[in-house]
Amino acid sequence: MTAPLPFEKTFPRVEPERLERAFTALTEVLSPGQVRRDEDTRQQYSRDESDSGVFPPDLIVFPESAEQVSAVFKTCQALGVPFTPCGARSGKSGGSLPLRGGVAVSLERMNRIRSISVEDLTAVVEPGVITGDLMKAVEAVGLFYPPDPNSWQFCTMGGNIAENAGGPRALKYGVTRDYVIGLEWVTPTGEILQVGRRTIKGVAGYDLVGLFVGSEGTLGVATEITLQLIPKPKHVMTALIIFDSVLTAARAVSAVLAAGVLPRTLELIDDVALRAVDGKAFHFPAGAGSAVILEVDGNVEEGLLAELAQAGEICERLGATQTLVAQNEEQREKLWSARRGVSTALRTLKPYKLSEDIAVPRSRIPEIIEKLKAMGTELGLMVATYGHAGDGNLHANILYEGPHQRALVETAIRRMLEMTVQMGGTITGEHGVGHAKRDYLAMEQSPAVLELQRRLKTFFDPAGLLNPEKMFPDPKRF
Amino acid sequence: MTAPLPFEKTFPRVEPERLERAFTALTEVLSPGQVRRDEDTRQQYSRDESDSGVFPPDLIVFPESAEQVSAVFKTCQALGVPFTPCGARSGKSGGSLPLRGGVAVSLERMNRIRSISVEDLTAVVEPGVITGDLMKAVEAVGLFYPPDPNSWQFCTMGGNIAENAGGPRALKYGVTRDYVIGLEWVTPTGEILQVGRRTIKGVAGYDLVGLFVGSEGTLGVATEITLQLIPKPKHVMTALIIFDSVLTAARAVSAVLAAGVLPRTLELIDDVALRAVDGKAFHFPAGAGSAVILEVDGNVEEGLLAELAQAGEICERLGATQTLVAQNEEQREKLWSARRGVSTALRTLKPYKLSEDIAVPRSRIPEIIEKLKAMGTELGLMVATYGHAGDGNLHANILYEGPHQRALVETAIRRMLEMTVQMGGTITGEHGVGHAKRDYLAMEQSPAVLELQRRLKTFFDPAGLLNPEKMFPDPKRF
Repeated sequence: MTAPLPFEKTFPRVEPERLERAFTALTEVLSPGQVRRDEDTRQQYSRDESDSGVFPPDLIVFPESAEQVSAVFKTCQALGVPFTPCGARSGKSGGSLPLRGGVAVSLERMNRIRSISVEDLTAVVEPGVITGDLMKAVEAVGLFYPPDPNSWQFCTMGGNIAENAGGPRALKYGVTRDYVIGLEWVTPTGEILQVGRRTIKGVAGYDLVGLFVGSEGTLGVATEITLQLIPKPKHVMTALIIFDSVLTAARAVSAVLAAGVLPRTLELIDDVALRAVDGKAFHFPAGAGSAVILEVDGNVEEGLLAELAQAGEICERLGATQTLVAQNEEQREKLWSARRGVSTALRTLKPYKLSEDIAVPRSRIPEIIEKLKAMGTELGLMVATYGHAGDGNLHANILYEGPHQRALVETAIRRMLEMTVQMGGTITGEHGVGHAKRDYLAMEQSPAVLELQRRLKTFFDPAGLLNPEKMFPDPKRF
Repeated sequence: MTAPLPFEKTFPRVEPERLERAFTALTEVLSPGQVRRDEDTRQQYSRDESDSGVFPPDLIVFPESAEQVSAVFKTCQALGVPFTPCGARSGKSGGSLPLRGGVAVSLERMNRIRSISVEDLTAVVEPGVITGDLMKAVEAVGLFYPPDPNSWQFCTMGGNIAENAGGPRALKYGVTRDYVIGLEWVTPTGEILQVGRRTIKGVAGYDLVGLFVGSEGTLGVATEITLQLIPKPKHVMTALIIFDSVLTAARAVSAVLAAGVLPRTLELIDDVALRAVDGKAFHFPAGAGSAVILEVDGNVEEGLLAELAQAGEICERLGATQTLVAQNEEQREKLWSARRGVSTALRTLKPYKLSEDIAVPRSRIPEIIEKLKAMGTELGLMVATYGHAGDGNLHANILYEGPHQRALVETAIRRMLEMTVQMGGTITGEHGVGHAKRDYLAMEQSPAVLELQRRLKTFFDPAGLLNPEKMFPDPKRF
């Protein structure tokens, strides 16, 4: 039997009478301008960047404070209406899609940077703050917020917290979770909690911040986020290293890391992805079969030059054909906009795209790349691989013609995830499980671990109304 | 009313018949050599480094596998006998003390390093591995495990996981939690779970690793730990900077950080602590009123020299009287053994010592130090402050004559913690709540957050038999 792909699935919806009651109640706890149900808005909030389907909410609300978020949650719980939080809807796993309709709770109006402290190296922000706006604001005062999801120019901090967003710089600096020290958190039943701390260190009580970050909007939402920052590195150097094949490039990435060099990014672009993006923001040299973007940072320029030289030598010994070092900020930005543009450029190659973000132990990077290539050839599917090769986190995309190829695509996904898990890898390195990968989580986690998480979800949300049908496979089927 | 200090408290114990049944059952699931109840062993397992009392267990068991740990937990649950895990009993908050007696579950025999992967930058260890042994083993192959609790020469990795141990290097490298990527975990009811991952990145499901690390032996124990490592920095430089007063030193620490320098340690020793430790491992210069140990590391020597010079200039501008740079490994080790010896040396000054490990936002370090001094003077108590000033985590010790000063000491602790919390700080930066700080957690966390955590504990351990009377204040009294 061929399972339906995520975008083909349907879920039970809320009855009209119940929705009408919800509309009335929500306009009472919020102001009328904070509740929408027009068709345009419903369509706008029906999709994200996961390509995993169109699921319009019935109502969309725009709370402006923790108290309003709490009131919305309590209203939905009282009326038995499902509700799903969302930010910029830039997620890659469908975490913000209101699968059963009901109420979409947009945090976008809570978009103030409340404070930045140069002395404490901390910032306090609301969930609707755009990640790039935070980056710029802290860099302006000499601080640095390292996590840089691909969508940093438009994604929001609340979404980053929900998904525990990563990005290229995770290689050296870790992911969102490593920078969140405190949260104001609204639980699924509408309780407002202060968890975590304002200090760099602290171990008072259970690590509820750890539990909530990455809970993908199923255990509540952040209404205020306290972040720790680091001093902004004084120098950054970026090199583009060209290889004639992706396998050679992957081996070089492994060798650079094994030599003890820790760049802030080691991004890989394979032949398919390179052809898709070539000539848009950036022209790759003729004959390029794969490219690696290596970026180092630090406070001492000589140190960076030494690191860059060492990495460059290793790459050349392993078959790099060319190393280009960005000479100024403009060249750096061109390189990065090419890298950021890959996801979008791949859409131009085929009508449909399914993106998996697998991660394997670092030493297995060349092997997984080789196996993905072979699988694509065998199944007759276009496979494009790119991403954060330095930490083993690859975005493997299956490009295809349309729904008639469903069985083939489903086979490819299963094989890809099976080989990943067999290598000690994970089915999601940074995008989350959400809707898109829900049916595959049982390939990685045991029934006991899945059951514990389902029970934890029920512990926080007994009626299961917050962001339903997400993360954990339907126990009736798995 | 004056509350009893932790070491004076008593708790209900298990009836002899039930213990006899437990002894019989445990010798059946383990071998006879793995179960002890002789007086010597009971005394040996009755205390830790928290100075918070003597609580002998009735039985001590030494499981050698996850399956045996599970069998012990299931036996204790079935018979209604409290059980408390322990490692090297080097904890500073009484987390491993069997307050109600019952069974002490020592993980010390599970002490193998199972694997170290240079290619993946990971290691897999059992909980009884001594932290220092792990450090040495990974450094021998060019890798680095940064967390360095003061007791690293004898504490165990399982204990570090339970307490989310910190240490001087946390300033640059973070704490235990930042290096744990996967756990084999035995729940309070004896279920064996594999949580987390073997890859550097991964966001599949809730962050159960995050929830379990730092749960202080109340939500289960780790029977296997997968760690991520980093390449070993090629160079380390250590400087001792002398000040005539602790307040001047604290201001210098803040200024170094505000200038964008991020050393791997910035340790502070105040006048009382300095006098206590002077002349033992190390002779401080005459007239020294306070000392800062500043250590930098990295791969490029010139970079470190530049950082050290910058930090040194800032300190001198702010009143440092002398800067001594360790010229070799022997000198470095002397400095550090002086720092490590402070806790023990303070015991020689007065018969009793209560150590709090408060943390405040970085900018408040000078202020809290000044206030602690003033409080000591006002109450007529000796207060010694030292620790990880760089991240705001200070070990503030109250030294006193004996139980007759109970009321005064209790007043001092409450005032100290109140001023800490008022400054946005936490009552425990790295030692944990355990038994020693249980009664004070309500000063920092709201009733709702405490209640949520109590409910989480009950979710995992419905009968409340694993490590009872820990972390959360008794709801009947708070």
